Amino acid sequence: MNRDDVRNSGHPLPSWRPGPTRDAVLGFLADASSIPPEDRVAYFDNDGTLWCERPTYVQYEFFLDALRRRVHGDPALAEEAEFRAVLAGDASAVGEIGLERVALALAGLFRGISPGAFTREVRAFLRSGTHPTLGRPLSDLRYGPMLELVEALRGLDFTVGVVTGGGTEFVRSVSEELYGVPPERVVGTMIAYDLEEDAHGRPALRRTGRVLGDVNEGAAKVTNIQTQLGRPPVLAAGNSTGDTQLLEWAAAAEGPHLSLLVDHDDPDREFAYASEAQSFAAGEPITTTARRLGWTVISMKDDWASVFAEDGRRQSGGDVGAPGG
Amino acid sequence: MNRDDVRNSGHPLPSWRPGPTRDAVLGFLADASSIPPEDRVAYFDNDGTLWCERPTYVQYEFFLDALRRRVHGDPALAEEAEFRAVLAGDASAVGEIGLERVALALAGLFRGISPGAFTREVRAFLRSGTHPTLGRPLSDLRYGPMLELVEALRGLDFTVGVVTGGGTEFVRSVSEELYGVPPERVVGTMIAYDLEEDAHGRPALRRTGRVLGDVNEGAAKVTNIQTQLGRPPVLAAGNSTGDTQLLEWAAAAEGPHLSLLVDHDDPDREFAYASEAQSFAAGEPITTTARRLGWTVISMKDDWASVFAEDGRRQSGGDVGAPGG
Repeated sequence: MNRDDVRNSGHPLPSWRPGPTRDAVLGFLADASSIPPEDRVAYFDNDGTLWCERPTYVQYEFFLDALRRRVHGDPALAEEAEFRAVLAGDASAVGEIGLERVALALAGLFRGISPGAFTREVRAFLRSGTHPTLGRPLSDLRYGPMLELVEALRGLDFTVGVVTGGGTEFVRSVSEELYGVPPERVVGTMIAYDLEEDAHGRPALRRTGRVLGDVNEGAAKVTNIQTQLGRPPVLAAGNSTGDTQLLEWAAAAEGPHLSLLVDHDDPDREFAYASEAQSFAAGEPITTTARRLGWTVISMKDDWASVFAEDGRRQSGGDVGAPGG
Repeated sequence: MNRDDVRNSGHPLPSWRPGPTRDAVLGFLADASSIPPEDRVAYFDNDGTLWCERPTYVQYEFFLDALRRRVHGDPALAEEAEFRAVLAGDASAVGEIGLERVALALAGLFRGISPGAFTREVRAFLRSGTHPTLGRPLSDLRYGPMLELVEALRGLDFTVGVVTGGGTEFVRSVSEELYGVPPERVVGTMIAYDLEEDAHGRPALRRTGRVLGDVNEGAAKVTNIQTQLGRPPVLAAGNSTGDTQLLEWAAAAEGPHLSLLVDHDDPDREFAYASEAQSFAAGEPITTTARRLGWTVISMKDDWASVFAEDGRRQSGGDVGAPGG
């Protein structure tokens, strides 16, 4: 793709329906050539923005699967409060304990293993798992329209990063395969490592149960991106109140910029939950915040001709959603 | 450059003298095609490995310059113990207080400013400053032979990162210009940010005086690279005991790998300090450690036909050392 494609009718967003949302995105792409190359930086939230996050996060499913296997060999594990709530699928018990504490307990299941072994487990899970209600492979939960946008940005020499409230290493293990984004451009919640020696006296990294710095939500998404990647975005995309500061950061850019909010309003093809309680943390639904602050709201139902990358590919017979280099 | 150049006589290291060191480096480059692309990762320490670190670190000079300007407007600053030692050039007083505490006090001079303003100050300093004894511009302290190696690795699709014991944001401000390395591939000591609002209610990042995690030396170089970049190196280059774990990490790779140690043994063209006390932290000079562990030692005096990039460029009339994309 080159810049002329953006302006010509052969535009890079075939899975987007015509309308003001697509016009806003295409307008930004057309303006991008006026942005200095070193400032062409875009960050995408992962869960609910680049792929499906319902009924639970894929990362949560991964840890749940690991927990079930561990409990098989060590039944006493099932008696720990966090794990009992998780195994019972008891959302209110999880809520009472706190999702963060539960997530940390689950992440602790991998204490002591090497980064390479963790990566192999994540990849194996992604390759073999199936979505619990949609019936599609976990590797097939990516939103095709967003992949088209990522690809278009890459064609304009953007540096594209992925941001997650979950663990960095989980997303990093599959970011190249899913999105063409290398591991060093993933910013999430960081688990600390210890440096030890293996049996041959060689350095060996081991995961700990400690979180480094802040859990990557809200303001921490901005401060963590700055410390780890070092550049502000001119485009940011998210879908929840935890992305508010990230989207406002992009909106503060002096030149062309775009803040995108994915509104999950499509119960037929995906899920509808934009107005649920979790979105009211700011005292209003996140879609209301978006309109008040001038972000571009993507209606999954109205703005996307197809939702999942594999569906778009099947419909068009083309290569939609294949991650680039 | 393509892979054939590595094997042909038109090799990519014109500033390296023939001999076993150059052979080891060229041998690694020739073997690199057997390394899976996602594992082609190389990290270079900055001070003393990619550019000159004597008589003091450039970053230290930058902070000293900032301190002098601040003291001009606020003479009471000069009475603080850390600053008194620095302004007097009193190395033993600095040593007694501890370089780390002194460095943090200096970094604290920039508390409250935005990342963008900090970057502009670093770039202005680099453009205008002169090395105190060599008389050359600060932008002209890069080692040409190392830039040739960085460029050769990039031609083989390596991901090249820069590692520093100093502040990440200082090196990151100039890494693209000096080495063609984007800001997100610089790993150093991280200063925390606070997210505030500016006068218009827009998000505004402000530097704090707090260090996030560990100062980036020794084992922390390895754990920080893992948490921030996520991939182990197959090539690592350093020059001091603080790089030991990093070089051992590269040496632990299963396929082709290279651990390079720059030996500063060239008092005529640069400095000679390999056997100084600071290198004895491991109970032996770092060059002894290197030979014991099988690293490749680069003698600046014997292995490099020219030291600084600009000198090589003047001699050859070519483009040696121009950072690539």
